[in-house]
Amino acid sequence: MTRGRFITLEGGEGVGKSTQIAALAEAIRARGLDVVATREPGGSAGAEAIRSLLMEGSDDRWDARSEALLFAAARADHVARTIRPALARGAWVLCDRFVDSSRAYQGGGGGLTDADILALHGVGSEGLMPDRTFLLTVSPAEAARRLTVRGGSDRMGSKPAEYQARLAERFVEMAGAEPQRWRIVDADAPAERVTAAILAGLTEWL
Amino acid sequence: MTRGRFITLEGGEGVGKSTQIAALAEAIRARGLDVVATREPGGSAGAEAIRSLLMEGSDDRWDARSEALLFAAARADHVARTIRPALARGAWVLCDRFVDSSRAYQGGGGGLTDADILALHGVGSEGLMPDRTFLLTVSPAEAARRLTVRGGSDRMGSKPAEYQARLAERFVEMAGAEPQRWRIVDADAPAERVTAAILAGLTEWL
Repeated sequence: MTRGRFITLEGGEGVGKSTQIAALAEAIRARGLDVVATREPGGSAGAEAIRSLLMEGSDDRWDARSEALLFAAARADHVARTIRPALARGAWVLCDRFVDSSRAYQGGGGGLTDADILALHGVGSEGLMPDRTFLLTVSPAEAARRLTVRGGSDRMGSKPAEYQARLAERFVEMAGAEPQRWRIVDADAPAERVTAAILAGLTEWL
Repeated sequence: MTRGRFITLEGGEGVGKSTQIAALAEAIRARGLDVVATREPGGSAGAEAIRSLLMEGSDDRWDARSEALLFAAARADHVARTIRPALARGAWVLCDRFVDSSRAYQGGGGGLTDADILALHGVGSEGLMPDRTFLLTVSPAEAARRLTVRGGSDRMGSKPAEYQARLAERFVEMAGAEPQRWRIVDADAPAERVTAAILAGLTEWL
């Protein structure tokens, strides 16, 4: 049995992560491999229940500390009930956002540090990290265009443009600090070319 | 303005914590002080929403790690929205269970250590600790009798007697390790005598 790999996609709102997860799942299944496509927050019954608490209500429903703990709790359930069992049976796990999203969104403000977020991940998920993480980047103009087309924004997507820019910076910093794990993909390109670029970053295992 | 104090009551199910909180609140208010009586998990809107996730569903709804994070998230909201604001305006806060319950219930099993629980409390609530904690202890026979009278048990109270005994031991250990903060009160006694014993442990501030 080929060992399954744990692959995550990261980046701001509107960069095309869910489209790419679907395309990747299809491409990897076409190679005869078992694939579990999932997303955060959510991906297991308990985590979906926590997701509802996080996504509903006003922007200040949770302070930064409570929010970080709720994301970590949802992730712990997702890891224990979905991700680890899938990896254990040899499946590939493709996940739309993981702990790096918490590091980018919660680890840079509200008095919380990157070390705090990683400490929560250590207790909650025994520090499970992806084998590879793709950061999808788009130009600010393209991101704005895609968000307008989608028409929506939930509690997480409704923050100001300046916040989104800082977020993008933090993702690039994390990628730079761990080049072995991260690949940066230009997601301004057409979707098929983005999928091809991601697959090119998985050749060692495919 | 007299500075408010943060007082917690701890112990297993059926030791009379909620009765004592009510009696204490009355006694301290009678001295002309502002008192906030609260409980965990809960005590703020967000924490009550998380409490529902914790108290409903089957016994194995959450694994130990997710459960510990949810308790810490509820506590962080409770501290930020209820406890710290009350202490800041000079009120006394009387709380039925706090972080020591997490240490006793979640910190001794499921792969989690006491240090893990305190780490979550550090990130979530900046490590806020009570000024004084009263451990209410009852004999196993009395505890069983009271639980039968109450007739109910939720997810937390429905664990086997052996588990309750280990729990009681852990509380006594914690109290012994921090004698400055803890007082152990024999709660087999009639309720009025228990209240008097608790008030006797607060004379330095009353």
